[in-house]
Amino acid sequence: MGIVSFNVVDEEEYVFIHFELNGILAPEDLRSVIPPRVNGGKGVVISGRGPIWLYSYLTHFYHPTRFVAVYDPRVCGGVIVETHTRDYEVGDVIEEKPVFQ
Amino acid sequence: MGIVSFNVVDEEEYVFIHFELNGILAPEDLRSVIPPRVNGGKGVVISGRGPIWLYSYLTHFYHPTRFVAVYDPRVCGGVIVETHTRDYEVGDVIEEKPVFQ
Repeated sequence: MGIVSFNVVDEEEYVFIHFELNGILAPEDLRSVIPPRVNGGKGVVISGRGPIWLYSYLTHFYHPTRFVAVYDPRVCGGVIVETHTRDYEVGDVIEEKPVFQ
Repeated sequence: MGIVSFNVVDEEEYVFIHFELNGILAPEDLRSVIPPRVNGGKGVVISGRGPIWLYSYLTHFYHPTRFVAVYDPRVCGGVIVETHTRDYEVGDVIEEKPVFQ
């Protein structure tokens, strides 16, 4: 088991990716993180408790997908931070019940 | 004054960008955020207290620069999350004293 585990839920418009840390993550651990591959025709919603730089790493990793959103429990949804489709705008919120918490 | 203010410190290898929120940031506020333009030949270190999706937004915004790092006070430096140069690797830490806190 890697330092970061991923759970994936495939929704119609996007893939919900929830990570969990198996210990304290160090910066150099980013080099061995293997995020799940997803269908680039869908968006990605990233969720989990971890350092901001893990989110930034994953945001960049999923850059080729349709859109990238970050799940925020305070707004009960994924906030779109980048998009390559006219169907979604930066700042839109994808409502989603957190499947893994 | 916008909802997000930026302070910029131009270092030799990178630009240190510190943001401050002037109120509670809502997802749709991302549409009106105007991050400072930087010399793409340098890297960027992002710092500030705010939601993770603001970091992810800025990570994507600064994608064309030499590298992008996220400042983490726990490691006392900027953790590189993406790089377009062989001089830095993902997971490297740029040591930096926080200029604005």
